[in-house]
Amino acid sequence: MFIGRVSGSVTATIKHEAFHSYKLLIVDHLDLHGKATGAYDICVDVVQAGVGDTVLVLDEGNGARQILNRSVAPVRAVVVGVVDSVDLI
Amino acid sequence: MFIGRVSGSVTATIKHEAFHSYKLLIVDHLDLHGKATGAYDICVDVVQAGVGDTVLVLDEGNGARQILNRSVAPVRAVVVGVVDSVDLI
Amino acid sequence: MFIGRVSGSVTATIKHEAFHSYKLLIVDHLDLHGKATGAYDICVDVVQAGVGDTVLVLDEGNGARQILNRSVAPVRAVVVGVVDSVDLI
Amino acid sequence: MFIGRVSGSVTATIKHEAFHSYKLLIVDHLDLHGKATGAYDICVDVVQAGVGDTVLVLDEGNGARQILNRSVAPVRAVVVGVVDSVDLI
Amino acid sequence: MFIGRVSGSVTATIKHEAFHSYKLLIVDHLDLHGKATGAYDICVDVVQAGVGDTVLVLDEGNGARQILNRSVAPVRAVVVGVVDSVDLI
Repeated sequence: MFIGRVSGSVTATIKHEAFHSYKLLIVDHLDLHGKATGAYDICVDVVQAGVGDTVLVLDEGNGARQILNRSVAPVRAVVVGVVDSVDLI
Repeated sequence: MFIGRVSGSVTATIKHEAFHSYKLLIVDHLDLHGKATGAYDICVDVVQAGVGDTVLVLDEGNGARQILNRSVAPVRAVVVGVVDSVDLI
Repeated sequence: MFIGRVSGSVTATIKHEAFHSYKLLIVDHLDLHGKATGAYDICVDVVQAGVGDTVLVLDEGNGARQILNRSVAPVRAVVVGVVDSVDLI
Repeated sequence: MFIGRVSGSVTATIKHEAFHSYKLLIVDHLDLHGKATGAYDICVDVVQAGVGDTVLVLDEGNGARQILNRSVAPVRAVVVGVVDSVDLI
Repeated sequence: MFIGRVSGSVTATIKHEAFHSYKLLIVDHLDLHGKATGAYDICVDVVQAGVGDTVLVLDEGNGARQILNRSVAPVRAVVVGVVDSVDLI
């Protein structure tokens, strides 16, 4: 998993029904100082995260399907939580 | 998933029948400003995307097979939708 | 697997019950000289590792679920051991 | 999948019988201008590709096993076709 | 798969019994000129490779488990062979 920040959303014409019930968020990868690294993922949202939120992203397909409680779900990355705090040494 | 742009197609002599019904697109990875990053994927197309289209790509094998509704499909990346809009902060 | 060092932890509001019994550690990737590379992973901890510990991380989802002895566990990286020594040529 | 060029082969003493019937090719990753990027993969060959051939490589383990028509095959990358043409915008 | 060179080993306190019968090797990734790239993997050894050996590494979890003939084995990378020769153009 990685820490990211929601920077927007994507609207796309997708025929596959598995996508119809989910919002697609653009999530910037953050380094441990909270800065965007330049990488991003398009993620399915299951926690109603908003733009600007710092979030926890699971980036593994089989686990992502488990989060969605669906065996069939063509996803790779899911926003699984909103980060409350990051505690570094 | 990532956002990409279709920049062409590949024709190849492939013996495995699983490939015979699909078009193979060259998709450049885009950053969030719409610029090509230099990375690309050869993707199976399920939405009849054309050259120049901005598309959403699922880059995970098991999910890609689900999109194709086939348990046997030797693919890793699939164009799953045409992007209508990208909304950033 | 890679060698990492625990540099902190993350607290997040996660609805999925699979996360409730695990602590989420921030683990910096180390090179073979023990220096942080700048990359990190948010890992589930199964060995009670503490901040500053040098650890071994398994970064593959299906194997991570096996470590947890759960078929359903939405994780990708798990701290599987505390490193006692690294022996280089 | 990615486009590569066969630059050689590897001979190795491998005990596992699953490897015994396959040739192991060294395949350089190519960018879309046909230049080697510096990255490579050691790939199982199923199309009798020769050194210098431009090829299509599937780089996903589960799909690679399907190409080989074997449920047990410890591979990650397979040369699935010889590229006839790459059509860019 | 990639070509690597064994540069050492790791000793770690690991509770999960699946690790107890295997030696954990540090394997540097090599480029095609035999130079270390700076990347490494901690690999399970199934061929009794020694420090300094040039080896072939399978870096995919499901295939790695097949090499080990175990359905449950929390690994991602396995040393599957000792390289006898690399033949480039």
